[in-house]
Amino acid sequence: MTESKKFLLRESDIPTQWYNILPDIPVKPLPIINPATKEPLKAEDLYPLFAEELARQEFNDTDSWIEIPDEVREMYKIWRPTPLVRARGLEKLLDTPAHIYFKNESVSPVGSHKLNSAIAQAYYCKQQGITNITTETGAGQWGAALSLAAKHFGLALAVYMVKVSYHQKPYRRSIMQTYGAEVVASPGMSTKAGRKIITENPNHQGSLGTAISEAVELAMSTPNCRYTLGSVLNHVSLHQTVIGLEAEKQMEMAGEYPDTVIACFGGGSNFSGLAFPFLRHNFSGSARTRFIAAEPESCPKLTRGIMQYDFGDEAGYTPLIPMLTLGHNFAPANIHAGGLRYHGAGAIVSRLKADGLIDAVDIPQLETFRAAQTFAAAEGIIPAPESSHAIAATIRRALKAREEGRKEVILFNLSGHGLIDMAAYDRFLSGDLADYSVSDEEIARNVASLEKII
Amino acid sequence: MTESKKFLLRESDIPTQWYNILPDIPVKPLPIINPATKEPLKAEDLYPLFAEELARQEFNDTDSWIEIPDEVREMYKIWRPTPLVRARGLEKLLDTPAHIYFKNESVSPVGSHKLNSAIAQAYYCKQQGITNITTETGAGQWGAALSLAAKHFGLALAVYMVKVSYHQKPYRRSIMQTYGAEVVASPGMSTKAGRKIITENPNHQGSLGTAISEAVELAMSTPNCRYTLGSVLNHVSLHQTVIGLEAEKQMEMAGEYPDTVIACFGGGSNFSGLAFPFLRHNFSGSARTRFIAAEPESCPKLTRGIMQYDFGDEAGYTPLIPMLTLGHNFAPANIHAGGLRYHGAGAIVSRLKADGLIDAVDIPQLETFRAAQTFAAAEGIIPAPESSHAIAATIRRALKAREEGRKEVILFNLSGHGLIDMAAYDRFLSGDLADYSVSDEEIARNVASLEKII
Repeated sequence: MTESKKFLLRESDIPTQWYNILPDIPVKPLPIINPATKEPLKAEDLYPLFAEELARQEFNDTDSWIEIPDEVREMYKIWRPTPLVRARGLEKLLDTPAHIYFKNESVSPVGSHKLNSAIAQAYYCKQQGITNITTETGAGQWGAALSLAAKHFGLALAVYMVKVSYHQKPYRRSIMQTYGAEVVASPGMSTKAGRKIITENPNHQGSLGTAISEAVELAMSTPNCRYTLGSVLNHVSLHQTVIGLEAEKQMEMAGEYPDTVIACFGGGSNFSGLAFPFLRHNFSGSARTRFIAAEPESCPKLTRGIMQYDFGDEAGYTPLIPMLTLGHNFAPANIHAGGLRYHGAGAIVSRLKADGLIDAVDIPQLETFRAAQTFAAAEGIIPAPESSHAIAATIRRALKAREEGRKEVILFNLSGHGLIDMAAYDRFLSGDLADYSVSDEEIARNVASLEKII
Repeated sequence: MTESKKFLLRESDIPTQWYNILPDIPVKPLPIINPATKEPLKAEDLYPLFAEELARQEFNDTDSWIEIPDEVREMYKIWRPTPLVRARGLEKLLDTPAHIYFKNESVSPVGSHKLNSAIAQAYYCKQQGITNITTETGAGQWGAALSLAAKHFGLALAVYMVKVSYHQKPYRRSIMQTYGAEVVASPGMSTKAGRKIITENPNHQGSLGTAISEAVELAMSTPNCRYTLGSVLNHVSLHQTVIGLEAEKQMEMAGEYPDTVIACFGGGSNFSGLAFPFLRHNFSGSARTRFIAAEPESCPKLTRGIMQYDFGDEAGYTPLIPMLTLGHNFAPANIHAGGLRYHGAGAIVSRLKADGLIDAVDIPQLETFRAAQTFAAAEGIIPAPESSHAIAATIRRALKAREEGRKEVILFNLSGHGLIDMAAYDRFLSGDLADYSVSDEEIARNVASLEKII
């Protein structure tokens, strides 16, 4: 009865540096390239689009540790350090010899890990004297986090929100508006890209690709304005490493080291954030941890995508990134884990997967909701549909450990809570949800066009 | 830059005893009485309705400290201890010499303080061998908390949810259902009370009074079943004192003691929980803290109600409680702080207010939403509409301290976050919300009938 449930750090334990994995990777990712010139990009090439420091971080492959600015650390104190929790309730329910831990990133005021990078990005924009920023958001986790950060640093923010989400997820829209952001349903009439799409198809419900195009266009055409992105890119993964760095200290408090590290996977921000700090001990040979990225069955880029140069957006406006991809025109099924509906993986994670340094599993939607309900019963927390993929993968491992009668120390990332996603649970409880698999033919057809890109 | 933002305790600092204020109150409340016999009730009289230990706690006026069972403390560890936060952002924004602290109860997995008592009540029911419990819920905070607790202890739970909320707040309903509770729109056909109301008025949208009647009826007519209540009663306040007991230690860590303690007020559970442990130092003469209960302008029982015996429910099924009340038939305006729409205050708080040991203020709805938006901008957290009353009262004090050029240490309770109440914010941002005042005539008319009760 007196065993620790949570492992808690002090504010002074909030990391003072982010961990940059790029210098330590055995085989480096290929460079990002300019689709027009086919030449590798340099940091300066991205200055018109991103704050300069963020562009430099994107390309930094020499410094393993990057100082976290005082102003950013100060704002992390709103909710960090986050708890590491021993999921004794889940262990008991599964009757498993596995020890299950989770890093609880859901305690942030917007309910997810996205704030870790939103604060850093808003800070660097502010520091450079930028006054306006733009972004896109699908389900709204990233948009909500950036809205809070922008408010704190006094930046005007315009969020292009995928139209179908704008109408179906009014709570997320209201959160952004309460923090003072301007939220625009995408596609809309305020940009050329939006006008073109609406003219061709007045009933277009929007996509992440379209929203990115609109946000980029506004940033490029507005004085003193930059664009921001909540996942996929190296600098986003960098900022998220506070998750794993804290968890490393907390696992030490618990007197254990993870055999397996699990996180859900959309563009890679929460997976990278938890995994990279532990992965460095695999690189150095001092650990042999297994890393599992849990992606939706309906969007299986890590398990079934191909390694190719591809665009980051559907419209093909971004630089070309070397990625495991289903093709930038891949249209994932409309599952409720909106944050995982993305066609490709960031360059670093793609390289690691291709080289066998991390694993991946794809999980059907219904299994993720069943796992979520099990977790809510056992641990009291209703998880975000995205995070439920990590929980489902964890339950698979824990049951395997039971079958094989061996202890396994599992650490997963609870990237967010589901209290703003209850409409999804409602549909699950009503029996309205389905699984969506993807045929080999569909993937082959979709990636066929990629070989012409470069 | 290295100043503490949050004051954090360890799990071992979770209180081992609740503080029972009854033995220490200078003037005791009058007894609860049986409306039929007009005789004072004893604990045994409530055994058919509540778990026996809860009934005994309700009447215990001899033990200042009640042991918290291990199983309850163990479950508190899911989210407790909660942080005490120095609201430096708010202080700066208000440019006030006041030091503002808040106890952040919003970090619970259901987003509010209600879980503190829900766990205790479910535990004592389980311990007694009870298998089924019932309750009512308005906005759904209490119902969500009890659903989680019931799931944990393996109790079947039926929640009667006010019909208008059942339809307007589907997220809260889904939270309860995800934890496995049966949620029934009240009034409904499953009880005599419900059938009678529906037969008379097929379009009845429900009220807390009706829902209580249905929940009590089901509990009384079901084998091995008991009723539970989330506020008003002494044993609920008792369980909530973990809030103030933790805050006391944390204020000590901060090196300060509160001049003013503020909490919002519906039935009294979060106000009592924060205030009572500090109040005991006023009783002993070692402190002179001011206590302010912040209630809605539209439901002003503490500031404008009368002290009388009254029923706890609209239908008049409960025992008679000596309370500051607007009359059990008072129909508060449909403000968004659903948790504060209650006609009376618990017996202890009513006595304390009548004896001048605590203060109260009533606050217009629009001021509470403006305060909430200010707080979200300054501290990053979107508060529940209920908690926003405490924030508005805090801002008033802080601005007064600025006017008068004096330091004041203010501690308030952030009883919950607003992420499940974004529809209310949406209406506020759209300019759709209004203030609702109550005329003296309306109050006089409504309380006139009370004198006939006893």
